Amino acid sequence: MSKYELVYHAGIPGRAEFVRLYLEATSTPYEDKALTEGQDCIKPYVSGEFEGSDTNPTPFAVPVLKDGDVVISQTANILLYLATRISTPLDLEGGEKDDDRATKKAKSSPASFDNPDTFHTNALTLTILDLNNEVHDTHHPVSVMSYYEDQKEAAKQKADDVRKNRMPKFLANFEKNLAKSSSGFLLPSGPTYADLALFQLVDGLKFAFPARMKKLLPDYPKVEALYERVKKAPKIKAYLESDRRQKYSLGIFRYYEELDGEE
Amino acid sequence: MSKYELVYHAGIPGRAEFVRLYLEATSTPYEDKALTEGQDCIKPYVSGEFEGSDTNPTPFAVPVLKDGDVVISQTANILLYLATRISTPLDLEGGEKDDDRATKKAKSSPASFDNPDTFHTNALTLTILDLNNEVHDTHHPVSVMSYYEDQKEAAKQKADDVRKNRMPKFLANFEKNLAKSSSGFLLPSGPTYADLALFQLVDGLKFAFPARMKKLLPDYPKVEALYERVKKAPKIKAYLESDRRQKYSLGIFRYYEELDGEE
Repeated sequence: MSKYELVYHAGIPGRAEFVRLYLEATSTPYEDKALTEGQDCIKPYVSGEFEGSDTNPTPFAVPVLKDGDVVISQTANILLYLATRISTPLDLEGGEKDDDRATKKAKSSPASFDNPDTFHTNALTLTILDLNNEVHDTHHPVSVMSYYEDQKEAAKQKADDVRKNRMPKFLANFEKNLAKSSSGFLLPSGPTYADLALFQLVDGLKFAFPARMKKLLPDYPKVEALYERVKKAPKIKAYLESDRRQKYSLGIFRYYEELDGEE
Repeated sequence: MSKYELVYHAGIPGRAEFVRLYLEATSTPYEDKALTEGQDCIKPYVSGEFEGSDTNPTPFAVPVLKDGDVVISQTANILLYLATRISTPLDLEGGEKDDDRATKKAKSSPASFDNPDTFHTNALTLTILDLNNEVHDTHHPVSVMSYYEDQKEAAKQKADDVRKNRMPKFLANFEKNLAKSSSGFLLPSGPTYADLALFQLVDGLKFAFPARMKKLLPDYPKVEALYERVKKAPKIKAYLESDRRQKYSLGIFRYYEELDGEE
């Protein structure tokens, strides 16, 4: 049995994908419960009838991570929790060059509260997840539980705003931070799970807004380079080619031709 | 000079209020920069031309906390950062009863990664901030930078959904967690900054949706009791009566009669 159990809807990458990428990149064994046991594994967590409910708050929503007796919710929080427990260094290089051993050693300690980078990584991830939420709202701007078809007019307006204003604003911030960093990653000290999160965001944006991203991404060459670098990192590449990587579908990143556009 | 500098728009409680309440409740000195220096203090942080820009990522948005050389962004992240550094115990009691000394001592250590409650507090806070974001979207559902007046139709739909579906769903989760806890706070181990965040959320909801909250809140008696308890805690009471507590205005929580309703 894997130490970590991940609970999330099967059939879409969704918010759990940010967690999966980190577990995969660090070769941390995990069980994707809905894939092994079916979607019924989700309900007990949000209804409060889960094992461990007496010592853990009831999550508002999935993804949920179960680590023995501890049950953790909220995507960014799960990533932070894992980073404080996983000591495997994140290796997002293509394997062409030898790593400096001192650097490698420094990166192999779990995240600590004494290190400001722990909080910088969390802030960058929360910002990436903020745009992820805004992308969700491009097809569900007025009602989370209703169909896209019932809010198409507002969706068009929201998607126009996200494409024209929000995507450039967020991408400019990521580009600025990559430009400040000498490592090629968001933080000068080296790769973190925030880089994986940025990869996933860009990947989803390319799926949902192909015309817009084709025009926009070249304006942010460091973001594009990070995307390509992460995509080619051996562990990520193997994961993306495996059947554990689920296809985009009716989740956060959806392709509706009428919501895309060059501008 | 205070150790902590808080950077946020003057004139609204906004997202910084979650941070202010925690600083106030722990009697931690801080300087609210926009109040002392004016709004111009904000721009360098988001443009990247701030002191410390060479060693800290450029924030996407305020609130920002400056702690010496360290610059931290994202509301939930700032709270977590502070919780790992502030050792003053959170006292949200009215002062009527003697505290158990052992309990008091346990609460006086800063948050640690070894304690799952650190992550539970973060998850609860992130969930509270999720509804805070949805409330923002009730008046700005399709475009962050446009006027409410230019998106009134979608705003009406979004507000209807938040009032009818989202507020009860979130409040039910908070009520469930308060019911599971023996402490009267969200976590059985005692008060945390998540309780302050829930107070602020309920307070804002009462301002923005008075008719809805008058009808809805009695269905969640433990949430209402926590709200009243926090409001009467001596340090919070003194803060709320001071001129440091800014009035609701054109921020996240706004009152538009047409967006409120009993249902």
